Amino acid sequence: MPRYKLTIEYDGRPFVGWQIQDNGSSVQGVLAAAVEAFCGEEVSVHGAGRTDAGVHALGQVGHLDLAKDWDEDTVRDALNAHLRPHPVAVIAAERVDDSFDARFSAIRRHYLYRIINRRADLTFERGRAWRIAKPLDIPAMQAAAQRLVGRLDQLDVQRTADDIQVLASARSFLHSQVRSMVGALALVGEGRWTADDVSTALRKRDRAACAPVAPPDGLYLARVDYA
Amino acid sequence: MPRYKLTIEYDGRPFVGWQIQDNGSSVQGVLAAAVEAFCGEEVSVHGAGRTDAGVHALGQVGHLDLAKDWDEDTVRDALNAHLRPHPVAVIAAERVDDSFDARFSAIRRHYLYRIINRRADLTFERGRAWRIAKPLDIPAMQAAAQRLVGRLDQLDVQRTADDIQVLASARSFLHSQVRSMVGALALVGEGRWTADDVSTALRKRDRAACAPVAPPDGLYLARVDYA
Repeated sequence: MPRYKLTIEYDGRPFVGWQIQDNGSSVQGVLAAAVEAFCGEEVSVHGAGRTDAGVHALGQVGHLDLAKDWDEDTVRDALNAHLRPHPVAVIAAERVDDSFDARFSAIRRHYLYRIINRRADLTFERGRAWRIAKPLDIPAMQAAAQRLVGRLDQLDVQRTADDIQVLASARSFLHSQVRSMVGALALVGEGRWTADDVSTALRKRDRAACAPVAPPDGLYLARVDYA
Repeated sequence: MPRYKLTIEYDGRPFVGWQIQDNGSSVQGVLAAAVEAFCGEEVSVHGAGRTDAGVHALGQVGHLDLAKDWDEDTVRDALNAHLRPHPVAVIAAERVDDSFDARFSAIRRHYLYRIINRRADLTFERGRAWRIAKPLDIPAMQAAAQRLVGRLDQLDVQRTADDIQVLASARSFLHSQVRSMVGALALVGEGRWTADDVSTALRKRDRAACAPVAPPDGLYLARVDYA
């Protein structure tokens, strides 16, 4: 059976998360429904990362097997037609080898966490970024990120005006790891934690010593790399 | 009476436009309600530009007069508190001279029009950009923009991946002028019009010869300059 790799963008707000669950609409669920509406097949779309409720994706990757050897653009366009009106879009569909597995073949996952640092509530970006009212100390956050980077490939903090981006890259992440790290960095940015507090919390591996987890709003699965 | 200049951001989707109208909620209307909730005064907020239904603002400017000499940050924070849950935010409030008029003192208005050029429907950007599926010829659009620039200060077309930005700056604009120009540029980008067709339509000043007006979704009042 021909295998397809899908690159998927979604707004996580209306979903219980990537994975099919009993308690509401999931990204995986609306994708499966679109596949069935397109070609009548009941198949699973296997994802590279199981994003939580409210977490977004710019470049989630999934794979699925279809009975017929469809043209790549037909798969993309037909799925998009049947995905309406859900805020889920197939950016690309590619025919791949049977050995390709969206989850297990991934060599690196890139997450983006967006903070908007301003007094005013969000308008456009509501549910799509974490607003922090208190002015953040970016150099302090950058220094603390160096304590957290550990076995990650990258943990960077960048600022453009009010827009702060935390970029995290690694082969794999623990559940809530990015949101946990961003929660700690925010405490440092607000001056409530020092970089040493970050190291201590990290060493203790003690949830009680940890910073509050950052909200899902700002988190995006940005890209997944394959060999 | 102390006069305040407000810098205002809004998502235009839920509104009939900037201006108070009988047929629905307006940005000016929710601002007036927030002012009244804050200090009990019934005042108008005068805007630099009357954006249409569905048109957004990153930096609309308004002015209003209040009876009491409030601290600038108090005005900003109190209005924001009372603007909830509307997607309207006061980014800054500044005490200005009585001669300042948001509309008549403006020396330049900057509009941004966002096109996303891809096959897939929009997710995050739904209602916030114009999706065009057919691949656009950016150099042709840039050349056509030079025919349209006329008495404007700037009309530029820029591309970053799928994201196309049309930037238009002038002291003032006619009603629907930016959306009209973007409609013509899109026809050029799709190869349905030449730059000469643009010049002809411009010369005829004939609405029937004109391109369809681009949808409000992609239009943002980005900034207003004052002397």
